[in-house]
Amino acid sequence: MNTLPIGVFDSGIGGLTVLAALSRALPHEDLLYLGDTARVPYGTRSPETVTRYSARVASHLYRRGVKALVIACNTATTHALPTLTAAGAAVGVPVIGVVKPGVDEADRVSRGRHVAILGTEGTVRAGRYQAALEARGLRAEGVACPLFVSLAEEGWIEGDVPRLVAERYLGGLRGGPDTVILGCTHFPLLRPIIQAVLPGVMLIDSAEATAVATAKALGEAGLLRGDEGPGRRDFLVTDNLERFITVGRTFLGQPPEPAMLVDLDEAVGPFHEPPAR
Amino acid sequence: MNTLPIGVFDSGIGGLTVLAALSRALPHEDLLYLGDTARVPYGTRSPETVTRYSARVASHLYRRGVKALVIACNTATTHALPTLTAAGAAVGVPVIGVVKPGVDEADRVSRGRHVAILGTEGTVRAGRYQAALEARGLRAEGVACPLFVSLAEEGWIEGDVPRLVAERYLGGLRGGPDTVILGCTHFPLLRPIIQAVLPGVMLIDSAEATAVATAKALGEAGLLRGDEGPGRRDFLVTDNLERFITVGRTFLGQPPEPAMLVDLDEAVGPFHEPPAR
Repeated sequence: MNTLPIGVFDSGIGGLTVLAALSRALPHEDLLYLGDTARVPYGTRSPETVTRYSARVASHLYRRGVKALVIACNTATTHALPTLTAAGAAVGVPVIGVVKPGVDEADRVSRGRHVAILGTEGTVRAGRYQAALEARGLRAEGVACPLFVSLAEEGWIEGDVPRLVAERYLGGLRGGPDTVILGCTHFPLLRPIIQAVLPGVMLIDSAEATAVATAKALGEAGLLRGDEGPGRRDFLVTDNLERFITVGRTFLGQPPEPAMLVDLDEAVGPFHEPPAR
Repeated sequence: MNTLPIGVFDSGIGGLTVLAALSRALPHEDLLYLGDTARVPYGTRSPETVTRYSARVASHLYRRGVKALVIACNTATTHALPTLTAAGAAVGVPVIGVVKPGVDEADRVSRGRHVAILGTEGTVRAGRYQAALEARGLRAEGVACPLFVSLAEEGWIEGDVPRLVAERYLGGLRGGPDTVILGCTHFPLLRPIIQAVLPGVMLIDSAEATAVATAKALGEAGLLRGDEGPGRRDFLVTDNLERFITVGRTFLGQPPEPAMLVDLDEAVGPFHEPPAR
């Protein structure tokens, strides 16, 4: 069991920032990433549709064999975490989402007890982050920043355009929250721009917080593998492999390879042979 | 047959600009719009996936009963027109795409015989527009402008941000093409900004050109209905009805209603009862 990979699931490309953080926190673990690029983006879809798509991806990863599942997508975590946690429990696989780790970190660091959450329309409208923050006595507000996703995918992460977009979305937050959660996996790419528009504000990267939470959960469950050299990274996508590799480079710092196209409904056996070492 | 609606198919919301143009060109016709909002956007997907999604939508509309099908999406036309035309012929339904009408119009108006086509990544990379223009002896170049789609959906169609984005995408075209095709149904919303960045250039709205071509095709096929008062407009979407109505207002000038959610795979009978007049 401990030699199985950790499954990392995202709607598309953004989850690569979570995979990068997991690589740093858990360098010896094998990571199997699945980006549902045939149905991306999840951020503008209804909760029912996001849950249906997410369950289909998770089921595919369970059939391939994973020892844990990280939902590296804020929208999928927001809508589908209860469903995926129940399905994971049925096959003995712990499921970690990106919302709670970010909220925990905000709760830990916010001095002013006032937190803003930046996300997609779906994440912000659902209000899951805001409810979790308020349950801990923090004041919370959400700002939907859908253009940040397009800017990150276009690679326009510095210069006039992202600065103006950030100013328009976030200018109204100045003098308000002392802590801001980057509640979409695309947003860490725009971190310098966001910080420039909101100087002095503490930015929380939910990818980093999730990697730390995953390491902790695996340790507690006795699921960590030992130091057997660097882990493998494998990438699966449901459409447009070429674009995934090209655009993914911006998110991961290197091309996400080896990558292959999968049909979620195809019969699959265990994907991962433990590599000879 | 003549009393059936014209089916208008788009990946999501952008096709409403084509529907608006059809409403002006064919005010007495009933129009049945279907936006595949559960799978939008098509612009970054592979040709195979776009064709599969498009065929599923078209089949649904044929089962409901339409007398013609307008593919109000440049990416779907680019990848799926031959497949949809064949399927339409099998059920006796003419199929009109948005590419040829725009190319015809460019051929008619371009004095310098040099045309640029602005579109999604999928449309530009496929090169269908460029090939059609070059086949008529025009010099052609494509510019992918994916952020225009997000700007239009966000309603940011004037001011600094769209102006800077347009300058970055299009500044390099100044002094080049004398004619530019807006080869994505979202782009007419940004027409004033695009014209400001490219003064003196002739802009071709493929939505308008397609409406004219549709009127012509229906007239030739004897499929036009008479002047029996204003036609109905009905809207179907595959996900997130609320967002479709809200964002659709920007595209149509009024909310796209009556609208309802559909499951493409459900068994449907003819949708459209000819309204009592």
